Amino acid sequence: MDELKKRILQDGRVLNDQVLKVDRFLNHQIDVDLMDRMGHAFFDHYRDSGITRVLTVESSGIAVACSVARRFQVPVVFARKTRSLTMVDDQYTAEVFSFTRQKKFTIMLNKRFLESDDRVLLVDDFLAKGQALLGLINIVHQSGATLSGAAIVIEKAFQEGGRLVRAVGVEVYSLARIASLKNGKVLFS
Amino acid sequence: MDELKKRILQDGRVLNDQVLKVDRFLNHQIDVDLMDRMGHAFFDHYRDSGITRVLTVESSGIAVACSVARRFQVPVVFARKTRSLTMVDDQYTAEVFSFTRQKKFTIMLNKRFLESDDRVLLVDDFLAKGQALLGLINIVHQSGATLSGAAIVIEKAFQEGGRLVRAVGVEVYSLARIASLKNGKVLFS
Repeated sequence: MDELKKRILQDGRVLNDQVLKVDRFLNHQIDVDLMDRMGHAFFDHYRDSGITRVLTVESSGIAVACSVARRFQVPVVFARKTRSLTMVDDQYTAEVFSFTRQKKFTIMLNKRFLESDDRVLLVDDFLAKGQALLGLINIVHQSGATLSGAAIVIEKAFQEGGRLVRAVGVEVYSLARIASLKNGKVLFS
Repeated sequence: MDELKKRILQDGRVLNDQVLKVDRFLNHQIDVDLMDRMGHAFFDHYRDSGITRVLTVESSGIAVACSVARRFQVPVVFARKTRSLTMVDDQYTAEVFSFTRQKKFTIMLNKRFLESDDRVLLVDDFLAKGQALLGLINIVHQSGATLSGAAIVIEKAFQEGGRLVRAVGVEVYSLARIASLKNGKVLFS
């Protein structure tokens, strides 16, 4: 998606050869019009997949997941990373290690909100080492729902996540694939 | 907002006389069309306030904040509750105690994303004891920005948050105000 690539070049910051910071428009400050155009691009790609639910994990995936779901006219469900006193129902759970937070999370999803006849589209802002996405895939498998694919805003193609997720048979559609962040420069695939 | 009140009566669950669970449409599974209509209602109320930024805190406020911001054609910024290795800039911070999670958080906002000439609308899904909203108000005051008000989906009017927030001079506009959850029943103000 050309608009996204231009925006990454304009407003992204390369912190080191592993980390691209896009907090000006994607995951801290949010450009809602860009979100909607990305939602439309994902809809175009998956429009014939019969999607019934969009699944993401808090927090950075929620904005783009809502934009995708609006196009499909289906609900969003987001997995939780922290337990609350009000979680009284049975939950699907999966273990996820976050490298940026250096912490293991248990992600949780109320079993009411994912059923075996659902067709699920996963959505997230980044695909890097793939841990969050593999956790969501695990939860979809537990539910017996059909997994239609993963819609990713930015894939760091030089890290292993994309390979790991595709290796378990999940189609990944990324709007921007980054081949390298070496020497402070963003190089797209 | 009648549609929201009907939805609360239809899909909300009263866990006890303090807790209303609305995870079917608001803060775990999300009804994106309802979000948009709520965004429109908030826009109608604050349309003459010259809003330049919508501020919320992760995670449950993000979806409705995006719907509000789309109407105003301004960015959303969401405060973070957990520190990441990629947070390299100066942050505004405030301490917040969450009763549902029984935990103290430091909420953080990159100083780049809130400026003294901003006119800010706060958005959140719930106003109960007011801790999260008071933390956001603290951050807006630190930034020197003008606070135009707070847009709340559900205010539990029998808890102290609304009173505390209004006592510091912040206008609160809630789409549904709940007077009581006693005897398993939702009673609106």
